[in-house]
Amino acid sequence: MSEQKKALVLFSGGVDSTTCLGLAIDRFGRENVIPLSIYYGQKHTKEVDAARAVLQHYHIEGITLDLTEMFAFSNSSLLVHSDDDIPMESYDEQLKKTNGTPVSTYVPFRNGLFLSAAASIALSKECSYIYYGAHADDAAGSAYPDCSPEFNTAMNTAIYEGSGKQLSIIAPFVGMPKSEIVKLGLTLKVPYELTWSCYSGGDVPCGTCGTCIDRQRAFEINGVTDPALA
Amino acid sequence: MSEQKKALVLFSGGVDSTTCLGLAIDRFGRENVIPLSIYYGQKHTKEVDAARAVLQHYHIEGITLDLTEMFAFSNSSLLVHSDDDIPMESYDEQLKKTNGTPVSTYVPFRNGLFLSAAASIALSKECSYIYYGAHADDAAGSAYPDCSPEFNTAMNTAIYEGSGKQLSIIAPFVGMPKSEIVKLGLTLKVPYELTWSCYSGGDVPCGTCGTCIDRQRAFEINGVTDPALA
Repeated sequence: MSEQKKALVLFSGGVDSTTCLGLAIDRFGRENVIPLSIYYGQKHTKEVDAARAVLQHYHIEGITLDLTEMFAFSNSSLLVHSDDDIPMESYDEQLKKTNGTPVSTYVPFRNGLFLSAAASIALSKECSYIYYGAHADDAAGSAYPDCSPEFNTAMNTAIYEGSGKQLSIIAPFVGMPKSEIVKLGLTLKVPYELTWSCYSGGDVPCGTCGTCIDRQRAFEINGVTDPALA
Repeated sequence: MSEQKKALVLFSGGVDSTTCLGLAIDRFGRENVIPLSIYYGQKHTKEVDAARAVLQHYHIEGITLDLTEMFAFSNSSLLVHSDDDIPMESYDEQLKKTNGTPVSTYVPFRNGLFLSAAASIALSKECSYIYYGAHADDAAGSAYPDCSPEFNTAMNTAIYEGSGKQLSIIAPFVGMPKSEIVKLGLTLKVPYELTWSCYSGGDVPCGTCGTCIDRQRAFEINGVTDPALA
C-alpha cells in the first residue's frame, strides 16, 4: 500500500465542482478520489443527469446522498416544494431588491450542511481532504453568505478540529472569479459540454437566470463559446 | 407580535441537552423554543422514548430528523450496523488504548452535522439562536473532538457568517463539568427522572459504560442520587 492520500469532492455536475473534480483527479489520481453528489429537492434534475455523465467520462464511481428532508421547512425558490419562482435576472439586480440579505435561491446553510455531510463520509472513507468548488463570485454582495471566505475559513477550522485534526477542506477557487476557474479547467480538459448550470428546468439552458448569465460571461472572457450552448 | 427571539434546541433526551432545553424554556418561554431531536442509527432507542417523555413534561412539540443514511459508511460502535461492541469502561481508560485518537463511540463529525442541520432548520423557522449542550468533560483528552471549545468556536463563526449573520450558537455549558450542569438543572427543576444516558440497550441503565459512569458522578458531586436509578 502506498501512502497516497485520498480526497472526497463535493460534486454537483456544474462548472465549478466539475473543475474541482478534474483538479482532484489530476492531483491524486482517480482511484483516490470520491465524488459526493447531494440531492436536496432542487426543482430540476438536469444537474443529476449531468453529474452522471461527467462521472462516466472520468470512469469513476460516486456516492449520492439525499438531504431533501432536511430542507422541508425552507421556502427557498430553488426547492421543488416552494411556490416562489426562480428570479430571472443577475445577482446584482436581485441584491438591489433584497437589501443585502441572501437572495431567494439561498438554501438555508446549504453549504454548511454539505460540507458537514462530506466531512462525515470523508472520515468514514479515510480521506484526508474535502475538495470544494466555492469561488469569489458566489459570495459577492452577500448573495450566498455560505460561500464567503469568512464562512469557508471558519468551516475549515471546525472540520479540522472536529475531526481530531484528520481532515481539511481544500477550496482551491476561493479567491478566483468564475472566468479563472474555466481557464484552469480548459487546461485540464474538463468536459464542460457535459455540465449543467441553469436553475430552470428546460431541456436547454435558459440563458437568462443568474447562473446562466455568470457561466456565459466566464467562457466569453476566455474567448470560448460555452460548449453547453454549442 | 412581540420582538421575542426564538431558539432551536438540539435535544436528545440525555442529561446535558435536557438541561439545555430547561434553560432555553426558562429564558425564552416555551412558545419560543423548538426542540430538534436527531435520530442517526443509534443501537438503542431508549433515548428517543426519553426525549418524548421530557417534551410531554414541558408541554412542547419537537421536530425529529433522521440522518441514519448519512452515517452508512461509519463503523462507529454506537451505530446499529456496526459489529463492534460499545466499550464498558471510562473514557480515560478508552483513551489510553486509542493513543489520543477519538474513542470507538465517536460518530464521524456528528456534532458538526447536527449543528449544520440545526442551523438550516433554525433559519427556516426564523430562530436567532441554536442552544446546544456541549460541555467540558466530553472534550477531555480528545475522546470527542467535535465537542471541543476549538470546534465550537469555529462552528459558531461558520454558522454566523454562513447564515448572513442571522443565527448564533449558544453553548452555555462549554466551560462546565457535568456536575455543574446538573447543579444548574436541579435549580431549574429539570425532570432528570425522565432522561436517558446509557449507551447500552437495556431496560435500566447498565451503570458501567462511559456515559453511565459520568452521569452517576455528576449527581453524586451534588449530593443527590441519580433519579434514573432511584
